[in-house]
Amino acid sequence: MIKINENYLKLPGSYLFSTIGKKVNAFIQDNPDKKVIRLGIGDVTRPLTPTITDALHRAVDEMGKEETFRGYAPDLGYDFLRNAIAENDYKARGCDITADEIFVSDGAKCDSGNIQEIFALDNTIAVCDPVYPVYVDSNVMAGRGGQYSESAQGFSDIIYMPCTADNEFAPEIPKKVPDIIYLCFPNNPTGAIINKEDLQKWVDHANEHGSIIIYDAAYEAYIRTEGIPHSIYECDGARTCAIELHSFSKNAGFTGVRLGYTVVPKDLVREGTSLHTLWARRHSTKYNGAPYIVQRAGEAVYSQTGKTEIRGLVDHYMRNASYILSGLKDAGYTVYGGTDAPYIWLKTPGKMTSWEFFDHLLNTANVVGTPGSGFGPHGEGYFRLTAFGSYENTVEAVDRIRKLGA
Amino acid sequence: MIKINENYLKLPGSYLFSTIGKKVNAFIQDNPDKKVIRLGIGDVTRPLTPTITDALHRAVDEMGKEETFRGYAPDLGYDFLRNAIAENDYKARGCDITADEIFVSDGAKCDSGNIQEIFALDNTIAVCDPVYPVYVDSNVMAGRGGQYSESAQGFSDIIYMPCTADNEFAPEIPKKVPDIIYLCFPNNPTGAIINKEDLQKWVDHANEHGSIIIYDAAYEAYIRTEGIPHSIYECDGARTCAIELHSFSKNAGFTGVRLGYTVVPKDLVREGTSLHTLWARRHSTKYNGAPYIVQRAGEAVYSQTGKTEIRGLVDHYMRNASYILSGLKDAGYTVYGGTDAPYIWLKTPGKMTSWEFFDHLLNTANVVGTPGSGFGPHGEGYFRLTAFGSYENTVEAVDRIRKLGA
Repeated sequence: MIKINENYLKLPGSYLFSTIGKKVNAFIQDNPDKKVIRLGIGDVTRPLTPTITDALHRAVDEMGKEETFRGYAPDLGYDFLRNAIAENDYKARGCDITADEIFVSDGAKCDSGNIQEIFALDNTIAVCDPVYPVYVDSNVMAGRGGQYSESAQGFSDIIYMPCTADNEFAPEIPKKVPDIIYLCFPNNPTGAIINKEDLQKWVDHANEHGSIIIYDAAYEAYIRTEGIPHSIYECDGARTCAIELHSFSKNAGFTGVRLGYTVVPKDLVREGTSLHTLWARRHSTKYNGAPYIVQRAGEAVYSQTGKTEIRGLVDHYMRNASYILSGLKDAGYTVYGGTDAPYIWLKTPGKMTSWEFFDHLLNTANVVGTPGSGFGPHGEGYFRLTAFGSYENTVEAVDRIRKLGA
Repeated sequence: MIKINENYLKLPGSYLFSTIGKKVNAFIQDNPDKKVIRLGIGDVTRPLTPTITDALHRAVDEMGKEETFRGYAPDLGYDFLRNAIAENDYKARGCDITADEIFVSDGAKCDSGNIQEIFALDNTIAVCDPVYPVYVDSNVMAGRGGQYSESAQGFSDIIYMPCTADNEFAPEIPKKVPDIIYLCFPNNPTGAIINKEDLQKWVDHANEHGSIIIYDAAYEAYIRTEGIPHSIYECDGARTCAIELHSFSKNAGFTGVRLGYTVVPKDLVREGTSLHTLWARRHSTKYNGAPYIVQRAGEAVYSQTGKTEIRGLVDHYMRNASYILSGLKDAGYTVYGGTDAPYIWLKTPGKMTSWEFFDHLLNTANVVGTPGSGFGPHGEGYFRLTAFGSYENTVEAVDRIRKLGA
């Protein structure tokens, strides 16, 4: 008799967005005349830009002709894309990363879920709290979670690093040394950033203890502040301790196109084994390459016109972020993030819990956001709004909230 | 100090296609005047058909406009595609599979590598020998392999089911009951098929013992013989014991487009847990949906013109298969497969090993195939040719082999 993977049963259930959906649907049913504005989910709304759709059309035409048809892609990605990434995202920033250290994939979510597979099951992981749920869930499913505690709202074997207003949403290096540390900056959900000096401390700590940092840079395109690192490889010694994840979802709007990449430097060696080799093996056994047409779209992101258009997309969302930030401040809210990230993290007013504020905002302003407690226990008392809506809707939502006051 | 997943180190190394590549490159360097014809790898060569490229172009245009742009796809696939699959691949064949039991993915290779994650690590798996390497390798990487034995060319904890001319390449039900059984029909690499009566025996055995069959139907479009099942769900009781994998690679030529799907019936319950729920959880945590434009291309495969064009593609490759079969028979070879599969499996002449025959064919006919021993120890003494080349090259290759004689 086959046995199931019982680790799956330890997951407390991913009810966050389904609970939100149910509450919103119930509200709409009871209030058919109200216009609900959704600033909850981290999905983009602007269409693909002309340079990207042109590249897609050209690649589709190539696939329709015998002379230019392409079958299986190289497991690790086409050179034209790996070279463009190495040149623009690394060499141009003074980072020592070569094209053959870049693994093209169908997105940062997949990579952030899959990367743990190359490590032993008895490693200890550390995550920020609040946190993007995939880091924890993928490790729990593999068997690294231990037991879930309802009261602590967390897993016994996972090290949680609280990120609250008290520490300016900057995780502190935990007392117990973790084997694998997940960091995401600019941060989802808090919108916090990390400066180079602080990031260097993590790199030094990891190198000292032989730990690995999984650095999620999915939101680096939103960094506006000078001197904030766009890549962990801007730090000395990161080549021997860090894996970096990148997405085309939030800069070029590829949430429905699916493209990302992961960097595993060749200097990353543990127990005499190259992690680059392990990840290459994982890729070639359990993955079959990103679509050719999508990789051509990725290449176009790095063209001159592509860069200009993508800057326009990010500017659009950051104008929203700026409007939300100033509007909420005006209304008396305490707000964080939103300057170098598409997320605004706000303190719920008074003693309201995250869910109470969710209900309040839905019922009074007809605006949907995400309760901070959905990202972890230290997200309680906070609330996330995203800058990914249309400008008109964002303005209307903020103006409604402003009318309510905090 | 982080520990790596040492199971990866147990893999003997996937040197098959890299060894082939090296030998071919060396030959070309020494013989620059010779035209080498490759009938080795299972990649298609015909371009995408007009109905598919039209669907892709239309979807790209939609993605370029604000009103029709699509962000994150539903985790399990768009309804338009799941409905088309349910209707055409199941309902039309009298199989009781509904759209919500279909999980759209980026290909059957990924699914066949990932599916084992929902099962416990102490399950015993059974595979055919010879076999598509992903089934074994993904289980070894997860920790279900035990130790590799150089002499046995296999893993201690895996049940190998020999498929040779003696049993007409039909695996026998093993004496030790496996928990997970991988079956692939039409078979890669042998090109063998299974009739409904024999497949029913596997289904009955699995139901009796609570095992699960992972049924890889990637090549079902090549079935020509009447009455041969296209899906395991044509068998009674398969809904309680079978998961089925499908690909758009070999019928519609999507090897570089990336689309597949997996069926997990809701009746598939073990230890009181629905495997459908587990696989949905895996999908939503470690995957983020197939690209919208690719799912539209998949939908077009099921349109009237799409079906006609895809039949044309398969006919093209099967004409090659037929030419290879009759040509090799004429030349005195003993050949198998090729009637309902794009693979021709031949007995190497005399006492030649698979690799000796590889060298012989390369040096004398300048034709590249795949040594059967690369798929497992019981592939020794066999050789795989594929029907995926152009007709002209296929004819030329066969004519060269025919001139040599067996």
